[in-house]
Amino acid sequence: MTFTITPLDEEAMAAALARHGRLAKPAGSLGRLEALGVQLAGISAACPPPMPEPVVVAVFAGDHGVVASGVTPWPQEVTTAMVGAFAAGSAAVNALARQVGAEVLVVDVGVANDVPAHPSVLGRKVRRGTDDLALGPAMSLADATAAIAVGAEVATDAVNAGAGCLVTGDMGIGNTTPSAAIIAAFTGRSAQDLTGRGTGIDDDMLRRKTKIVADAVDRTDGLSPVEILAEVGGLEIAAIAGFIAAGAARRLPVIIDGVIALAGAVVADALTGGAVRPYLIGGHRSVEPAASAALDHLGLEPLLDLGLRLGEGTGAVLSVPIVQAAARVLTEMATLDELLA
Amino acid sequence: MTFTITPLDEEAMAAALARHGRLAKPAGSLGRLEALGVQLAGISAACPPPMPEPVVVAVFAGDHGVVASGVTPWPQEVTTAMVGAFAAGSAAVNALARQVGAEVLVVDVGVANDVPAHPSVLGRKVRRGTDDLALGPAMSLADATAAIAVGAEVATDAVNAGAGCLVTGDMGIGNTTPSAAIIAAFTGRSAQDLTGRGTGIDDDMLRRKTKIVADAVDRTDGLSPVEILAEVGGLEIAAIAGFIAAGAARRLPVIIDGVIALAGAVVADALTGGAVRPYLIGGHRSVEPAASAALDHLGLEPLLDLGLRLGEGTGAVLSVPIVQAAARVLTEMATLDELLA
Repeated sequence: MTFTITPLDEEAMAAALARHGRLAKPAGSLGRLEALGVQLAGISAACPPPMPEPVVVAVFAGDHGVVASGVTPWPQEVTTAMVGAFAAGSAAVNALARQVGAEVLVVDVGVANDVPAHPSVLGRKVRRGTDDLALGPAMSLADATAAIAVGAEVATDAVNAGAGCLVTGDMGIGNTTPSAAIIAAFTGRSAQDLTGRGTGIDDDMLRRKTKIVADAVDRTDGLSPVEILAEVGGLEIAAIAGFIAAGAARRLPVIIDGVIALAGAVVADALTGGAVRPYLIGGHRSVEPAASAALDHLGLEPLLDLGLRLGEGTGAVLSVPIVQAAARVLTEMATLDELLA
Repeated sequence: MTFTITPLDEEAMAAALARHGRLAKPAGSLGRLEALGVQLAGISAACPPPMPEPVVVAVFAGDHGVVASGVTPWPQEVTTAMVGAFAAGSAAVNALARQVGAEVLVVDVGVANDVPAHPSVLGRKVRRGTDDLALGPAMSLADATAAIAVGAEVATDAVNAGAGCLVTGDMGIGNTTPSAAIIAAFTGRSAQDLTGRGTGIDDDMLRRKTKIVADAVDRTDGLSPVEILAEVGGLEIAAIAGFIAAGAARRLPVIIDGVIALAGAVVADALTGGAVRPYLIGGHRSVEPAASAALDHLGLEPLLDLGLRLGEGTGAVLSVPIVQAAARVLTEMATLDELLA
């Protein structure tokens, strides 16, 4: 599928920059809030930009055949259990979303087990988890494309329902392995540099995981973006890529979470020839090494660096008030002229 | 005046640490939210800790005689005008406080001009600005003590009215000069290292400002904390010190903003023999060099680093949702046992 993504609106950005120069504060004294406000103006083609709300956090859940090759101590059942926790509102991302007034949507795009029916869980299972990428392609091209389409549909539906800001989330035991492979394949960095400890693995498991990532990346030489995604990716990563691209196509800011979301962002970037980049906001710097490589690749500097390494969208959700504050100061602050009048 | 500040509650902290180990997430995966949650438990002597709300941002306003010696391009009238903006709700800190659901209180503890009467402005003027610290003591010991008492009264009244979290704010044209002097005097660091460009001054003005700070700090050798405050400080810095100490005495978390607030925190720390430290949360790393020196001195690592250099409490206010999120995850998340039951 293709995405039509237009550049940011230069006129609105110039107006936001000029307005920041007139507000009742020394020039530049609001630091990164100023550049963020200019970006939001460019995204929305309006100055001041509308408040980026309501905020929809889409948590895409999928399983990974590579867990059979021993890359994580956590059993695959945890993916299913966590989908239940998201639905019940008792996971970390739910607590943080309530803090910032965001809505959490859970999307089963590829959980291996059956997921209990629940009004806040969208059943969009493309298949029951991927195949083991240590042994061959993770999925077919058709499956990768279908998962991208699921993410795009979720974003488009959210925008049609009035969303003003999208946040990526993920759940999938084992998913730092395909994420490292995806990011290595698209950035050209080595598996050694990019494979991390995920939720916490020992040295032996890290060596095995790194070898699996390195071998998988070797198979991606000369492949197209969707082919790379199918060879070494994951269903939730594909869905996140579609979610990001469709959000950008509808001119919404998309706040990117940690390493899984960044793998999706790198894919979306490649699929759109870089057109998604101006719509992305880095929420939080994950401690996973592949996250920093992907951030560099995309030219993103995250707003937060609080040592989180949980995924689910938690880091990105925590940055929502900062993004909204950037819009708010452009709308609500007096200018120096008004103040001294 | 003296402040009775008790240590954090060890039992509640141990319970919070243990609870973080049982929540439905890998150990340590919420990064700094976990240590922050333990701190909040210790402060409130409860696990889970209560949500730190309502949040009161006290913006203490004062003027500085040293502006006559040419340390800033901004006229003193701006302090008065900004008090009007705070009262009208049109300054940066007001916009950010609305974003995070905090209340802004403005306190005239030493503005040189008359401040218009307004329900949200507390008239607690100790004197009309300080004397020029380039020429002699900024104020008397009695004035310094009176300003500390103003800050303490504001904190105590806020706690009595139900506040669950205090945030420091400040306004005062020229106030990075006394702040650099205070921080240099208490940390032993040099004026050269600690004097910064404030809201944006040129090289000539920076040289003059640095010399003024160096000469003023030379006069503080052998002085007591309150004597140093009177010699080179400011009325809003003194009030912030009292606000912090009284907040800690009432067992509330106090979120510290930029370099002016940190000057107040360094004074509060010295006045209480370090007893305030466990109650402090660093909100944002100001770009002013003295801010980092004070943070090191107090053992604080700020939650945010977004390049703000405005003061008013803006950086600290932006960190409020993170502090509240740290309490919220301890209250609202399921444990792994509950999840897999």
